Amino acid sequence: VAGFLMDKPPCLPPRRRKNSHKGSYGDVAVIGGAETMVGAAFMAARAALLMGSGRVFVGLLAQHAPTVDLRQPELMVRQAASVVALEHLDVLIVGPGLGRSPAAHDLLAQALQHSAALVLDADALNLIAATPELQALLRQRRPGSTVITPHPGEAATLLHTDTAAVQADRVAAACRLASSFNAVTVLKGCGSLVATPDGRWFLNTSGNPGMAAAGMGDVLAGIIGGLIAQRLDAESATLVGVHLHGAAGDALVADGIGPVGLTASEVAQEARNLLNLWMKTNG
Amino acid sequence: VAGFLMDKPPCLPPRRRKNSHKGSYGDVAVIGGAETMVGAAFMAARAALLMGSGRVFVGLLAQHAPTVDLRQPELMVRQAASVVALEHLDVLIVGPGLGRSPAAHDLLAQALQHSAALVLDADALNLIAATPELQALLRQRRPGSTVITPHPGEAATLLHTDTAAVQADRVAAACRLASSFNAVTVLKGCGSLVATPDGRWFLNTSGNPGMAAAGMGDVLAGIIGGLIAQRLDAESATLVGVHLHGAAGDALVADGIGPVGLTASEVAQEARNLLNLWMKTNG
Amino acid sequence: VAGFLMDKPPCLPPRRRKNSHKGSYGDVAVIGGAETMVGAAFMAARAALLMGSGRVFVGLLAQHAPTVDLRQPELMVRQAASVVALEHLDVLIVGPGLGRSPAAHDLLAQALQHSAALVLDADALNLIAATPELQALLRQRRPGSTVITPHPGEAATLLHTDTAAVQADRVAAACRLASSFNAVTVLKGCGSLVATPDGRWFLNTSGNPGMAAAGMGDVLAGIIGGLIAQRLDAESATLVGVHLHGAAGDALVADGIGPVGLTASEVAQEARNLLNLWMKTNG
Amino acid sequence: VAGFLMDKPPCLPPRRRKNSHKGSYGDVAVIGGAETMVGAAFMAARAALLMGSGRVFVGLLAQHAPTVDLRQPELMVRQAASVVALEHLDVLIVGPGLGRSPAAHDLLAQALQHSAALVLDADALNLIAATPELQALLRQRRPGSTVITPHPGEAATLLHTDTAAVQADRVAAACRLASSFNAVTVLKGCGSLVATPDGRWFLNTSGNPGMAAAGMGDVLAGIIGGLIAQRLDAESATLVGVHLHGAAGDALVADGIGPVGLTASEVAQEARNLLNLWMKTNG
Repeated sequence: VAGFLMDKPPCLPPRRRKNSHKGSYGDVAVIGGAETMVGAAFMAARAALLMGSGRVFVGLLAQHAPTVDLRQPELMVRQAASVVALEHLDVLIVGPGLGRSPAAHDLLAQALQHSAALVLDADALNLIAATPELQALLRQRRPGSTVITPHPGEAATLLHTDTAAVQADRVAAACRLASSFNAVTVLKGCGSLVATPDGRWFLNTSGNPGMAAAGMGDVLAGIIGGLIAQRLDAESATLVGVHLHGAAGDALVADGIGPVGLTASEVAQEARNLLNLWMKTNG
Repeated sequence: VAGFLMDKPPCLPPRRRKNSHKGSYGDVAVIGGAETMVGAAFMAARAALLMGSGRVFVGLLAQHAPTVDLRQPELMVRQAASVVALEHLDVLIVGPGLGRSPAAHDLLAQALQHSAALVLDADALNLIAATPELQALLRQRRPGSTVITPHPGEAATLLHTDTAAVQADRVAAACRLASSFNAVTVLKGCGSLVATPDGRWFLNTSGNPGMAAAGMGDVLAGIIGGLIAQRLDAESATLVGVHLHGAAGDALVADGIGPVGLTASEVAQEARNLLNLWMKTNG
Repeated sequence: VAGFLMDKPPCLPPRRRKNSHKGSYGDVAVIGGAETMVGAAFMAARAALLMGSGRVFVGLLAQHAPTVDLRQPELMVRQAASVVALEHLDVLIVGPGLGRSPAAHDLLAQALQHSAALVLDADALNLIAATPELQALLRQRRPGSTVITPHPGEAATLLHTDTAAVQADRVAAACRLASSFNAVTVLKGCGSLVATPDGRWFLNTSGNPGMAAAGMGDVLAGIIGGLIAQRLDAESATLVGVHLHGAAGDALVADGIGPVGLTASEVAQEARNLLNLWMKTNG
Repeated sequence: VAGFLMDKPPCLPPRRRKNSHKGSYGDVAVIGGAETMVGAAFMAARAALLMGSGRVFVGLLAQHAPTVDLRQPELMVRQAASVVALEHLDVLIVGPGLGRSPAAHDLLAQALQHSAALVLDADALNLIAATPELQALLRQRRPGSTVITPHPGEAATLLHTDTAAVQADRVAAACRLASSFNAVTVLKGCGSLVATPDGRWFLNTSGNPGMAAAGMGDVLAGIIGGLIAQRLDAESATLVGVHLHGAAGDALVADGIGPVGLTASEVAQEARNLLNLWMKTNG
């Protein structure tokens, strides 16, 4: 097992070519937003848009939900069942506000068989932990096409252990998840870990305790999904995304916005600005 | 009776520990938002979020209301009855836009028996004043677990007197409320008073007449609730919250935003920024 | 007839007293917002709030409309019929998005008999022009309790003449409206005129052609209504409001925001800031 | 065929006359916003408003959609069928989020027979490509009253060829579209082309690959429509609009907003500011 410290921006997305169009930057969809958790899907979708995705679909499970995001009208809002059936998607983010209903289970099963890259978070992970059939679908996916982003509790559920055991050896837990589920794995926490199926791992140094707040995970999933849509491979997108997410939070705190009351929406906006700054500086 | 002048920021929330997660910062819920008064519940909930609460639920009485706050999608919006039943809540804020319907009465009765800390405002106080059964539930609560935030009219109703009598001896009124109802008491007004059940009182010096505006009380309730969720005890959270709320209004007026037309939404935002400044400066 | 040039801020609202509460700053309601014109009512209501009104109600005719303004949750949104029946209102603004339906007619008739001060705009004026019964109600109102804000077309309809005739002698038209309808009258246009029932008139010098845009009239009605709620008399509120509205547009254009594409929403915000600046400077 | 390089702001709208009113700046309507694509119509409408249109209507096909845009309440939101029937409209923008339903077809047929100037985008172009009857209606329109804004794929469909062929000789494709359909034509892409029915063409030099993003076409259509409403002829409005749209994107990127994650909503705002700057500088 080889470990690396991630203390500066890793490989960035390629510069945008002059002769490109929105199709060049990928179609991303978020599957989630069940009743009472609609906001989580919108947060992930906005983050994906701000990372430069060509088009972003919000696929909601809730029957009663806005039909348009008037703060970000660039998003296309639909029912989840019609979105997961779109064959042209490049990235599917499944989990933000998903819940664990039978409908959520079925949508996740469909997503696991989709050719798009997958980012799985929150209840998508809990459903997988509870369902051997979904685990099998996950393991069968094309190598390098899946990212999972558990927090320690979700990691424990996936590993059939408890949170304390995960936290006692975070590197081992992250690496086991990555190899067992054939997925680039982010084990979130103070010093998020990224592990790859072939046994490498990376310790992230950005971020701060102001990010212990609602929606931060949804935004991270959106960021990673949006970067994959920009034609980064899953591992690179995850490394950039995790570091960028924390660095955006750090930049906001340095500006006096937080740590107390720092919001996930602000982190998504700042991540966009910071990524452009990195790309300009390193260009 | 011992009185103190509150002319500078009192004890602040503890610095956030590195190894914390959103569960470390508490689950807050607002119960209110009856038909035509939905906005009040959202204002309190946004303020609680901006004070750093880990998760914030909006429990609405209104049947016709948004299912998500697209300006603050971090909030989780639900029907009030399902929110008050959540056992894991750390703080319940009951009152903003609550109304006095039978449903409001029943929700308040449930909340008074909840193990969470309580912040009671507006029609929650009017309902208590009118209902001996609710008064009994309030008095039976665990010491140090309740805050009430009446304006002089609500204080008069609770004390079965009139507003002029309350205003004629504000210290006495605040202290009587605190001891009689076993609750940290904010008697709002020009120079808000905080009184404790054991007979101490504090006179706040921050604030300005621009804060005589719609929603300011909802935001104050949200601020206090959010601070309790950060692991401040009820008394400390109330002292910090009252001073911070006024100081945020003062900072905005100093910037030319108000006093005329100063909005409660702006005060909630500024309170977040100011609290972070205080914590940085005093660190 | 005595004419005055209004080329600087006229008498301003009184400084806010320390010992005041939101009841000190008045209850304002907007009656309007019929189907497809809901936005007009919200623009007027937001402007009234930003002028410092204690509480602002939005009374909508539309059956399908938001139940809360998530951008300005301080507003209380209700059906028009229940709002016009509120006896405690200090100011009623009738007209923004009102339409000319039978329901609109009935609401206007009720409003004309309300003890609150009235600001009448847009279709409220067209309905009055078409209905002798409404004219009689208007003329019977308490002197100094009504403001009408016609543009030249509406003025012509009220005077049973045509727009060209109004524009040919704007002073005469404004004065005839004021005396005939017993109302402080704003004849809008390039150089808005304010005329009083007793025959004085004022020519406003602020404003610019960027204000020839949707919603500017709604915002003006809201500003005047909000100032009356602050305890200015109708004439003073109208003079301040008209000059402030134009000056806010001028300040924005000076900052490069417009004249092309200047929005009414921006003017309402800037008017709030400018009024505070005036009050500070002249204090 | 005569070609021109468009490397600076072309002829601007006339300065606003002092004695003008909102009727002087035109009535614009957007026809589009079918279910799941509502945001596109709002983006075009907001852009038209920000370009200075006197009044802007949003005519939606979707049955379930907001009845007001609380972020831009100046817009009037209606069902598409009632909007296309408004005789007083100066400009109709048909296409943003239109879809290809029978209802969309019928609305487009009505629009093609309207005396208003037309801006046709997106599915309006796909419907025309598929329907000889609509092509005939388009060709019969008054010269100089129509603008079409295809991307290369839509251009190929209209010309019954493929995208590669269009891209191989963009000038020829643009000129063929302009003369064949009797419409000022924008062939979008890296270096957008504007071609006129009489055979002149213009190569735009502003813009950047950050504009390869959702909604940018909707905003361009809104900008061009809004400029026509300001009394620019269709050719001038298209030239100014195309250059301004790209220049606004460039200005944002220069400020560090993008290219990655640049949003169409931001481009619309910046275009308004930039147009005012141009008009001030060239005045």
